[in-house]
Amino acid sequence: MRMSRFFLRTLRDDPADAEVPSHKLLVRAGYVRRVAPGIYSWLPLGLKVLAKVEKIVREEMDAIGSQEVRFPALLPREPYEVSGRWTDYGPNVFRVKDRKGNDMMLGPTHEEFFTLLVKDLYSSYKDLPLSLYQIQTKYRDEARPRAGILRGREFIMKDSYSFDVHDEGLEASYQAHREAYVRIFDRLGFEYVIVRATSGAMGGSASEEFLAVAETGEDTFVRSPGGYAANVEAVTTVVPDSIPLDGLPAAHPEQTPGTPTIDSLVAHLNEAFPRDDRPWEAADTLKNVLVMLRQPDGDRVPLAIGLPGNREVDAKRLEAHVAPAAVEPFDEADFAAHPALVKGYIGPGALGSESVTGIRYLTDPRVVEGSRWVTGADVQGSHVLDLVAGRDFVSDGTIEAAEVRAGDPAPDGSGPLELARGIEMGHIFQLGRLYAEALDLKVLDENGKLVTVTMGSYGVGVSRAVAAVAEYAHDDAGLVWPRELAPFDIHLIVAGKDEAVVAGAEQAYLDLQAAGLDVLFDDRPGKVSLGVKFKDAELIGVPTIVVVGKGFADGLVEVKDRATGEKRDVEVTALVDHLRS
Amino acid sequence: MRMSRFFLRTLRDDPADAEVPSHKLLVRAGYVRRVAPGIYSWLPLGLKVLAKVEKIVREEMDAIGSQEVRFPALLPREPYEVSGRWTDYGPNVFRVKDRKGNDMMLGPTHEEFFTLLVKDLYSSYKDLPLSLYQIQTKYRDEARPRAGILRGREFIMKDSYSFDVHDEGLEASYQAHREAYVRIFDRLGFEYVIVRATSGAMGGSASEEFLAVAETGEDTFVRSPGGYAANVEAVTTVVPDSIPLDGLPAAHPEQTPGTPTIDSLVAHLNEAFPRDDRPWEAADTLKNVLVMLRQPDGDRVPLAIGLPGNREVDAKRLEAHVAPAAVEPFDEADFAAHPALVKGYIGPGALGSESVTGIRYLTDPRVVEGSRWVTGADVQGSHVLDLVAGRDFVSDGTIEAAEVRAGDPAPDGSGPLELARGIEMGHIFQLGRLYAEALDLKVLDENGKLVTVTMGSYGVGVSRAVAAVAEYAHDDAGLVWPRELAPFDIHLIVAGKDEAVVAGAEQAYLDLQAAGLDVLFDDRPGKVSLGVKFKDAELIGVPTIVVVGKGFADGLVEVKDRATGEKRDVEVTALVDHLRS
Repeated sequence: MRMSRFFLRTLRDDPADAEVPSHKLLVRAGYVRRVAPGIYSWLPLGLKVLAKVEKIVREEMDAIGSQEVRFPALLPREPYEVSGRWTDYGPNVFRVKDRKGNDMMLGPTHEEFFTLLVKDLYSSYKDLPLSLYQIQTKYRDEARPRAGILRGREFIMKDSYSFDVHDEGLEASYQAHREAYVRIFDRLGFEYVIVRATSGAMGGSASEEFLAVAETGEDTFVRSPGGYAANVEAVTTVVPDSIPLDGLPAAHPEQTPGTPTIDSLVAHLNEAFPRDDRPWEAADTLKNVLVMLRQPDGDRVPLAIGLPGNREVDAKRLEAHVAPAAVEPFDEADFAAHPALVKGYIGPGALGSESVTGIRYLTDPRVVEGSRWVTGADVQGSHVLDLVAGRDFVSDGTIEAAEVRAGDPAPDGSGPLELARGIEMGHIFQLGRLYAEALDLKVLDENGKLVTVTMGSYGVGVSRAVAAVAEYAHDDAGLVWPRELAPFDIHLIVAGKDEAVVAGAEQAYLDLQAAGLDVLFDDRPGKVSLGVKFKDAELIGVPTIVVVGKGFADGLVEVKDRATGEKRDVEVTALVDHLRS
Repeated sequence: MRMSRFFLRTLRDDPADAEVPSHKLLVRAGYVRRVAPGIYSWLPLGLKVLAKVEKIVREEMDAIGSQEVRFPALLPREPYEVSGRWTDYGPNVFRVKDRKGNDMMLGPTHEEFFTLLVKDLYSSYKDLPLSLYQIQTKYRDEARPRAGILRGREFIMKDSYSFDVHDEGLEASYQAHREAYVRIFDRLGFEYVIVRATSGAMGGSASEEFLAVAETGEDTFVRSPGGYAANVEAVTTVVPDSIPLDGLPAAHPEQTPGTPTIDSLVAHLNEAFPRDDRPWEAADTLKNVLVMLRQPDGDRVPLAIGLPGNREVDAKRLEAHVAPAAVEPFDEADFAAHPALVKGYIGPGALGSESVTGIRYLTDPRVVEGSRWVTGADVQGSHVLDLVAGRDFVSDGTIEAAEVRAGDPAPDGSGPLELARGIEMGHIFQLGRLYAEALDLKVLDENGKLVTVTMGSYGVGVSRAVAAVAEYAHDDAGLVWPRELAPFDIHLIVAGKDEAVVAGAEQAYLDLQAAGLDVLFDDRPGKVSLGVKFKDAELIGVPTIVVVGKGFADGLVEVKDRATGEKRDVEVTALVDHLRS
C-alpha cells in the first residue's frame, strides 16, 4: 500500500476526549475515528489489526472443536423475558420497537438464543458435548462510554457456549476454553492475569476473568505471592474466629456529643474513655452505611451495611453482590421516611428486618459472633460501647462489600494481597443449568431419561483487544505492534528526491511484496519532510522500518526495529532474505 | 468436518412461512435459521458460504483500489437530519433512543457518514479520487420481510462510495465499480442483467441495477431484442408526436349513465356513439386515478393521475416517482372532503392546481398535445367526448406511473419489450454533489478554489447473494452450489458398516484433507441409512460427492457430480489426483 493513496491522516494532537494512551494513539495514528460517544469507525489501519485479532481468536476456537455460527444483533424480547433479563438489563441495553410495535433488543450477549438454537436442533446425549461460537457485534448502552474502543457502546466480541449432559462434561468444556484463552492471550502478546471472578448478572457458578494488566484499566484485581488472584469483586474476607460470649462485658451507652464521623468518634473515645491496653482505633467501631437498591423493575429498597470503621464500602464489590439491582444514595427523603435513623449515630438497634425500620441489615464477615464494637446508639450524640455481635444484635446476613486493601491476607492463606489494575479481556463461566432450565433445553440421557443440559458461556473482547494491545505496546513516540497483529509487516520509507533512491525504493517495494510481505510504502513526494515520515512511522508502529536513502548509493538500506530502536545497514541485495528471517 | 460432530440437522419439511426455493432449501439444509421475522442466524454451513461471498466481494473491491473501512451500525441522528433522511426514511428504519435520550438509527446505508469521514481527513484535489468500502451489517424495518435472507431486516451489504473532484472522475469511478460488479456477479455464478434504474430516495443521477434473473424475484425488469434493459420503475414511455390542434372537433359532453368503469363506458360508447372507423377502445378513454401521498413528515397530500383507460397505475412505478412519499388509497373521507369529485365520472375539469379542487394532476406521457379523449364530465352519468389535451385541459406535468406491458416499444427504439423478474443484487449510483453539498464536503482544486466533491454510491447484497445463488442453483433434491461458493469441496460418504470400508473412508478423509480439500465426511454410524445419507448430500449441495462402499473391495470409490448427477468409479489410489483436477 502506497501512503500517497492510503486513506490515512495522522493527527498531531491528542483528541480532546482521550485520557488513556491507546485511545490517544489509535485516533492520532488513524486506526479508529469517533462517530458518537462510545461508537467508532474502523479506518483501514485499524481494520487490518482487528482482522488479525479475529483470525487468532477464530483459529484457537476452531482448534478446540468449537463451531462458528453467527446470530443477529437485533433480537426479539420473548426469550429475554423468559430468562428475566429483559428486565434485569435495565437501562444498560439499547431497546428498539419495530414498526409493528414489537419489542426488540440490541443483544449484549446471546445465552438465551444459543440455548434455543440447540434446543431446536438437538435432542440426545449423543449430540453432546457441543461448543458453538460467534464473532459478532454487540451493544451496551454504557452510562459512561470511555477510553475509545476500550469501552464502547458498539463492539465486537467472540462469545461461545458449551453444552454438556453432566457436570464433568461442563468442567472439561470449561478447561478446554480456558486453555484456548491462554493460547489466544499469549498470541495477542500483552501481559495478562487469570483471576477468580463473580458471575454477576450472568448467574452460574465457577467463573474466571482474563485481565490485561494495565494501570489505566477499569478493573481492580488482587494477587498474592502464593498465586492467589481474583478480581476485587470476588475477593473473600478471611473471617476471624468467633469469640466465646461468656465473660464479655455488658454493652453500655455513652454520651459522645459531636461525633458523627469515625475520626471524631475515635478522638472522643480516646479522650473520654481511654483504653488501658492501646488507643481506640477506627477498626474498633462498627460503621453502618445506608444505600438504596434500585431494582430492575424500578422499585427502590433500602439496605444497611455494617462494617469496621476503618474500611469504606467498595461500590463495585457492593454492586457485584446486589446485582442486578443498582446502588443509589440514601437521600434526605429516605432519612425522612425512616425517623428512627439518627444520622451519624445509626446503630444495629434500628436496623434489620426485625427492627423498627425493617431495613435489611448485612454485616461485613469480620463482624463475627463475640466481636465487640463501638457503634451508634440511635440517639443524637450517643454511642454504645462493648456491643457484642451475636449477643446484643444479629444481622440479616453478611456481605462482601468492604474495600480490599493491599496487605489484606489472601483467603487461601497464600500471603498478603497486592492490588493492581487491569482490563477485562476474557471471561469464562460455568453457567450450569440456569438458562437451560428457564428455556427448557433437555436431552435424553443414556437411560432414555430427559435431563437438563448444563452450559458454559465464554467471552473475548475482540475489538477491545486492539486497544488492550495498544495500551500495552506503545512508547512516547507511538504504537509498537507485535508482529502477529501489526497492520503491515514493513514500513518502507523513501528518503530524498534523488532519482536513483526513488527508483531503488520502488524496486524494494516490489521485491518485498513479491516475497509475500505486506508493505506500507511511504512514497509521499519531497514536500513531505523526512522528519514527518519518521514521526508517522513511529506513530503507526509497524514493527520493521526500512529506509532507502543516502546509503543506497553504496548499495545499503537501513533497517530499524520499531520496538528496540536498533538500526542496521543491510545490503539491498540481501534485504528480502534479511526481513524474511 | 465429521457429520457425527457437525452442528447440523437437516429438516424433512419446508418451513411453514417459506414460499421461495432458496428460503425452503437454506432452512431445510441447515444453512440459516429464523430468529424473528426477517431476522436469521447463520449456522456453520451458511456462514461458510457467506464467508466465500464476502471473499469474492473483498477481492474485487480491493482490485479496483477501493480501501476497506468499517462503520458502526448504530448511528447518531444529526447527519441524517442534515441530509433530510432522518424524516425521509419514515417507518422503514429502526430508531433507537439511548439512555440520555439521544436519537440514533440502525443504519440502512451510510452516505452521510462516509461524506463526513472524508471531510474530516481530506482537503485537496490531490487526495482524490478515493474509493472506500465496507462489508457490514445493515438494518431496514421492512413492512413485509419475506423469503428468508432474500429480504431480511438485518442483512449484510457491501457498500462503497467514490469521491472525485470532477464529473469525468465520477464517471471513471462509476465505470470501475461497474466492471468490478461484473466480475463479482460472474464469479457468484448466477444469471444476471444490468438494468437502468431510477435513483429513488438516494437522489443523484445515473444509476444501474444488477438483477439476478429469478421468477421469484420481487423486481420486474424489461429488456428488448436490441439490448435495452431497465427495471420497470425506470422505463420511459415512447411519447407519440403531438397533433396540431387546428381542425379538431369541439369537445361535447354526453349522457353516459351507469358507466363508472372503463369497460362499461367503452360498451356504452360503442352502443350509443359508434365510431365510423373502428370500435371504441379503452385506449380512447382518459382514466383519472386519485391517490393520497403520505409525506415522511406525516402529511397527506392528494394526487390525481390521468392515463389511458387501457392501462393500470403500476404501484412500484408510481412510488419510485413520488419517493420519499408513500402511496395510500384515496378513501371515502377523502372523497367527502372534495365534493367536486364525482366518483366514476372524474375528469380533468375538477383536477389540477388551478381547478376547484386544487388537486395536483399529472398525466401519462401519452397524453400529448392534440390527443383526443373520452373522459369524465364531473357530473354523475356523463362523460365528455373529443376532449383535447392542450386545448381543453392542461395538466400539472407528466408522470411515469402507467404499467409497462410486454410488447411496449423500448424507449431507445431497440424493439418490443419483454418483461421478466429479478432479485436486486447490486446497485450503482452517480450521486453527484447532493450529499457533499448538504454536509459541506469541499476540497481545494488545482486553482486553489474550494469546490464541492462529487460522489458515487455502490451496493452489493452480500447475505442476499447466498439466497440468490441458492435460488438459481438448486434442483428438486436440494442445493447445487457452484464450486467457488460451496461450503465444502467434497462430501464424503461411508456406505456400509464393513470394517475395511469404514477404514478406507477414514483414510480417504485424511488424504483429501492433506491434499488441501475441505471435506464434509458423513461418518454417521450404521443406524443412519444410506438413503438418508444420499438425501442429505443432495440437499446440502456440495459439488462433488464421494462414496466409499461396495466397490472398495475392488479398490474403487464412486465420485458423483452433484450438478449433473454423473457418476464414475475411480481407483482409490487415484482419488486425490482426480479430485484436484
